[in-house]
Amino acid sequence: MQALIFDGHGLVVQDDAPPPQPTADEALVKVALAGICGTDLEIVRGYAGFRGILGHEFVGQVLECAAQPGLVGRRVVGEINIGCSQCPPCQRGRREHCAQRSVVGIRGRPGVFADLVALPVGNLHPVPAHVPDEAAVFTEPLAAAFEILEQVLVRPTDRVVVLGDGRLAQLVARVLALTGCRLTVVGRHAAKLALLSAIGLETAQTDASMPGAADVVVECTGQPAGFAAALDLLRPEGTLVLKSTYAGAPQADLSRLVVNEIRLVGSRCGPFQPALRALAAGRIDPLSLIQAIYPLSDGRAAFAHASQRSALKILLRPEAG
Amino acid sequence: MQALIFDGHGLVVQDDAPPPQPTADEALVKVALAGICGTDLEIVRGYAGFRGILGHEFVGQVLECAAQPGLVGRRVVGEINIGCSQCPPCQRGRREHCAQRSVVGIRGRPGVFADLVALPVGNLHPVPAHVPDEAAVFTEPLAAAFEILEQVLVRPTDRVVVLGDGRLAQLVARVLALTGCRLTVVGRHAAKLALLSAIGLETAQTDASMPGAADVVVECTGQPAGFAAALDLLRPEGTLVLKSTYAGAPQADLSRLVVNEIRLVGSRCGPFQPALRALAAGRIDPLSLIQAIYPLSDGRAAFAHASQRSALKILLRPEAG
Repeated sequence: MQALIFDGHGLVVQDDAPPPQPTADEALVKVALAGICGTDLEIVRGYAGFRGILGHEFVGQVLECAAQPGLVGRRVVGEINIGCSQCPPCQRGRREHCAQRSVVGIRGRPGVFADLVALPVGNLHPVPAHVPDEAAVFTEPLAAAFEILEQVLVRPTDRVVVLGDGRLAQLVARVLALTGCRLTVVGRHAAKLALLSAIGLETAQTDASMPGAADVVVECTGQPAGFAAALDLLRPEGTLVLKSTYAGAPQADLSRLVVNEIRLVGSRCGPFQPALRALAAGRIDPLSLIQAIYPLSDGRAAFAHASQRSALKILLRPEAG
Repeated sequence: MQALIFDGHGLVVQDDAPPPQPTADEALVKVALAGICGTDLEIVRGYAGFRGILGHEFVGQVLECAAQPGLVGRRVVGEINIGCSQCPPCQRGRREHCAQRSVVGIRGRPGVFADLVALPVGNLHPVPAHVPDEAAVFTEPLAAAFEILEQVLVRPTDRVVVLGDGRLAQLVARVLALTGCRLTVVGRHAAKLALLSAIGLETAQTDASMPGAADVVVECTGQPAGFAAALDLLRPEGTLVLKSTYAGAPQADLSRLVVNEIRLVGSRCGPFQPALRALAAGRIDPLSLIQAIYPLSDGRAAFAHASQRSALKILLRPEAG
């Protein structure tokens, strides 16, 4: 099969990659569409030390599924963490925090930038019929946005700032707006902010408008400087949600967290069902974030496009898909 | 009056310091006993840029109080933040987060290492008759320990680690133990840990016993390295309470907070009434933490003693008190 591989040096489109051999509890899925995420770009820069087939955002069709034959033919999206099922996090249903976990296309497991992928049945979620592939492929990052609402009570009267206007920030803003809160997205790219204005969200190109006034700030810039900028925007006793992983360990003024009694919440993968419900009901429409769809064979060009500062979502379509 | 002053270079006992002139809403308090806190030691090392009469932990007797004459003669302790009463934090009753605040002996306001101090009536709390001065003087730091329970739900089934065995850690451990949680105090000083063992608390001299297992870790070491050590002890999705302020901005692995979805809570000043109730009921007995009581005139020797690594609480007693 065809697959887009990071070999430790660069990206390679391989035409004769061995197809996955699903285990007894896994389904074989034909990938229809896959999305390039900031984490994929980071991996190519060395993050997580991953080698192999990249990619973890996808929608596809189940080809084989011995464990649950009724799934064959269904369109599915898939959660990306596979746990040991024995440890305390797994037993709490939080396999994304299993110390032994593999993560699709990120850690110890092939990704979805390929014709085929094998995934445990328990990771798959059927996609409602009227949600197009182009929307369903956003389920995984949209779930990561919903994770914030699993962790933090965002009140309808709260003043909330999303810091950043990139791929994840766009989805986070759309999700937080559902709460009814007073939301401002602070970013640097006029074209990206315009996508938010177009759906009625308040945006700002600088953060000077409300220093120290936000109840909740969600840091989605991916830049180490975003941490201090987020603290500047937050009121005393406010909540800072960290969505970005940073290369290295930035200087952080931890005393400021203590003196202002800030609550900081690290936030990563999230629940798929709320994301699918929001897509199915049309409460979230991610289609305007798609800037291009490349065939998988043009994966290198797709990554180059996704790496541009102006880029939002770039999708990959396997030819066999 | 006599007062212990930090003049920007060193400590000076001044015998002819001008006595405070209480405003209409302030009481004049004769200081009976005052405690030296880690923050006082930091100020002498340059923290907060404070100059003037040091000290913020005290118990005393009201001498004059035009605004509330019934307070005259009462023994009182006092909250240390004085706000503008206009801003959003002040209107929420959180004057400790007023941007314009003064703080007794720390920021823009004389402290309590003196014969007399003036404080707003609203900051004072009468001390129950059977709580001795030697216990009441712990009210302010004990309130800071109770602040953790204002911010974080510590469940009776939680595994909790207090990191540090110093002044504040000792009080934090005693307060958290009240919740019924599985508590371990991890410290470096056998004599300090022995004080905790003596009241039935579990202690450990290293933190190797439970890597990655704690639901809640309270960082009270005052050392920048404490941040990483606390993260090592915490389970995924655990809560890290920061009680220490650090000089400078240590390197902090913020990506680890995101990947493990850690909740970090900065924690500072706390509520006086729960602290007084715990002292009055004998649920907290801080007397074993007192290592020496110096006359105020020996303030420099008292600070030298408090600066020793083995030191716990050192008290100062004004001669006029």
